[in-house]
Amino acid sequence: MNVRESWFPSHVRDLSLEECQRLLESQQVGRIGFTDPAGPVVLPVNYRMVEGCVVLATSPYGSLASHASSAAVAFEVDAIDEFTESGWSVLVRGKMSVVERQELRDVELPQPWAEGTRTMILKISEAEISGRRLILV
Amino acid sequence: MNVRESWFPSHVRDLSLEECQRLLESQQVGRIGFTDPAGPVVLPVNYRMVEGCVVLATSPYGSLASHASSAAVAFEVDAIDEFTESGWSVLVRGKMSVVERQELRDVELPQPWAEGTRTMILKISEAEISGRRLILV
Repeated sequence: MNVRESWFPSHVRDLSLEECQRLLESQQVGRIGFTDPAGPVVLPVNYRMVEGCVVLATSPYGSLASHASSAAVAFEVDAIDEFTESGWSVLVRGKMSVVERQELRDVELPQPWAEGTRTMILKISEAEISGRRLILV
Repeated sequence: MNVRESWFPSHVRDLSLEECQRLLESQQVGRIGFTDPAGPVVLPVNYRMVEGCVVLATSPYGSLASHASSAAVAFEVDAIDEFTESGWSVLVRGKMSVVERQELRDVELPQPWAEGTRTMILKISEAEISGRRLILV
């Protein structure tokens, strides 16, 4: 630990790609960031990792389908502990695209908790993955 | 409850503006969504509500300052319960701007948990606030 780190209650460590992938596999809900004509939007979504890619199921008539089904997107997962003021976050930046159900074969799809028909399957590919952990010192 | 709602494990309710404001006041960490030249970005940030507006403190040299200090942004807070598969989320969409420290008078600023000099104060104004709750039925 150098002097600068000891000045602050928490410091930030970059996570390895392996750790980011492991943390992505560990969660069920993340936040998708995309852009509609009014600007950025961030919404919570259920997801599943399929062969290292984030896969979502959405309604073909919703905002996500209209504005982000073939666009650059960001996807974030985190776990925050308000008591210890620590946590981690992983950010996936890539290109969203529609996936046909048969392409995924017998992969289990994300099961959205909310009601509604979510027949459009979306995948984030060509992704840049980064993550950070906030550690108490 | 109508028939359609009973078909699904969870259904979605829009939150009132008052409930959104109360939930925004209840949290310390949200996710800021903005756009840099490569596309959307979503990052966790500490925040505080000041006179109904989301206020953040960031480094004047970081990505948030460079790309979002005078831009359209989205800000999201949520609480998700993976066990009951329920939760809520609030989305704030508005225009970010830099605030001078003296404008805030003796308001207590958000205290970022992470290390670093976060002398730039940002505020989201002209915001559209919406929220949803996922309720088990």
